[in-house]
Amino acid sequence: MSASSDARPTIGLIGLGIMGRPMARNLLKAGYQLVVHNRSRGPVDELAGEGAAAAGSAREVAERAEVTITMLPDSPDVEAVLTGPDGVFAGAREGRIVIDMSTISPTVTQRLVEQGRERGLRMLDAPVSGGDKGAIAGTLSIMVGGDAAVFEECRPIFEAMGKTIVHVGPNGAGQTVKACNQIVVALAYEAISEALVLGARAGVDPAKIIQVLNGGLAATRVMELRGQTMVEHNFAPGFKIKLHHKDLGIALETGQAYGVPLPATALVDQMMVALRAAGREDLDHSALLTYIEDLAHWQIGDAAS
Amino acid sequence: MSASSDARPTIGLIGLGIMGRPMARNLLKAGYQLVVHNRSRGPVDELAGEGAAAAGSAREVAERAEVTITMLPDSPDVEAVLTGPDGVFAGAREGRIVIDMSTISPTVTQRLVEQGRERGLRMLDAPVSGGDKGAIAGTLSIMVGGDAAVFEECRPIFEAMGKTIVHVGPNGAGQTVKACNQIVVALAYEAISEALVLGARAGVDPAKIIQVLNGGLAATRVMELRGQTMVEHNFAPGFKIKLHHKDLGIALETGQAYGVPLPATALVDQMMVALRAAGREDLDHSALLTYIEDLAHWQIGDAAS
Repeated sequence: MSASSDARPTIGLIGLGIMGRPMARNLLKAGYQLVVHNRSRGPVDELAGEGAAAAGSAREVAERAEVTITMLPDSPDVEAVLTGPDGVFAGAREGRIVIDMSTISPTVTQRLVEQGRERGLRMLDAPVSGGDKGAIAGTLSIMVGGDAAVFEECRPIFEAMGKTIVHVGPNGAGQTVKACNQIVVALAYEAISEALVLGARAGVDPAKIIQVLNGGLAATRVMELRGQTMVEHNFAPGFKIKLHHKDLGIALETGQAYGVPLPATALVDQMMVALRAAGREDLDHSALLTYIEDLAHWQIGDAAS
Repeated sequence: MSASSDARPTIGLIGLGIMGRPMARNLLKAGYQLVVHNRSRGPVDELAGEGAAAAGSAREVAERAEVTITMLPDSPDVEAVLTGPDGVFAGAREGRIVIDMSTISPTVTQRLVEQGRERGLRMLDAPVSGGDKGAIAGTLSIMVGGDAAVFEECRPIFEAMGKTIVHVGPNGAGQTVKACNQIVVALAYEAISEALVLGARAGVDPAKIIQVLNGGLAATRVMELRGQTMVEHNFAPGFKIKLHHKDLGIALETGQAYGVPLPATALVDQMMVALRAAGREDLDHSALLTYIEDLAHWQIGDAAS
């Protein structure tokens, strides 16, 4: 499919980080015209070399694109890029679509959606799961909140980047489900960490623990993908602790907003505070293991063959 | 295969509860001669009607069987049945095999193994995972600790009752891995409970949460099997809270013995104390959901369709 395919909307993509870059490439590969912007210039030039048009501001992206996507680190970044004087809302004409694919607070999302709607924009929140590997392979899980008709209109765009694409509810629902996702992933890592340290410290080969647990009710995708690297103390990211910590903050803030206490999430959130204090915020989130090892003053590698 | 098959050892089974009864039936089905005993008489008569021989005491079982299996609720039960005056150790001749398939403390297991060895007995710990459904279907996961040669000798017996059969290490290792298993299962239920209450309270259809999460890194067997019944508030056991609470006690005690603090396990252990105080100890362990609901003063059923 060529980049000049007429039926397809021009897409704008703001935020060319570890996730945004491969997502941009998959959109180009699917034949979309792409206008990109990024705070630093390097990734813009890189994508321009691959067929994307470069824009000097978020506002310019929104002026030129029918559908503008943001893929940014956190709530304040999205807020600034959407509502700033040189931002998306300043450039996007009425009726255009704005999709935030960042992982941010559902309550901030609600506020931004309101502001976008007042300008006649059609808004979706569509955070993703699957990490940089999923972004590169085009196999992301995408959880989408917003109007069902807008979701259907954008489905081909999502299909260029992901595999499991689910419309989960009205605006904000995508971010809410992403927060739920991050709770379960964090607690799965914590569970496996406690199990592996306990079992290995008591003398059992951790590889056997992984084998047996994943054969039964204790089976988790996290242990399947990361059990072995945890035993090897290979914590190359992957998904960094500082980002997962940010996501747990979103979950706790959402819990606060809706009156839902989350005691186990709060506990793991505090563990991540400790890991950041220990200088491990750039390790993969599976390094939660090292928190339990620190408590036990013992490392699993001491037992693992 | 008939019950008179000569090459097979006579098996004794003590403890004909919700797990022991179907396990006994699968041993009969596989052609083993079976001698059974149980504290109450009813299940003994039931199994006797299906071809097992009835014994009046644990001692008598051990006198008549080459391999004696115990399947009892907790550490004190196993200790009494093995070491009591009318117990297994009093009846078993040197060289015979004793397999404890109950879920009990690894440290108690170590002590009982020592006592058995002093009498020349060959001991295995072989706790199971898979619940009454797995016991009935003969698909239990069985994690075995003890001498490798004894394990191999008993493998056909395990194969009559289970599907995933793994020798995980020396005596006690089976119980240790079971404790690890119960940690991960408990925390998986807690994770899903926090995620479902948060997401549903924020207005998302819980069925969508289950769908999306199980498509990605948050996938767990627990949510696959129990997510829907949790949303329906169907907490028919299954595996009762009081038994899982007992198992977390074992995990914490083992952690204490080996100097491994287990903060998230301890938190969920306390939640189970609260659930028992609320009179819910006979509900399925997925009723951890109701702990979070109580905290939020809201029930997921209020939102679920």
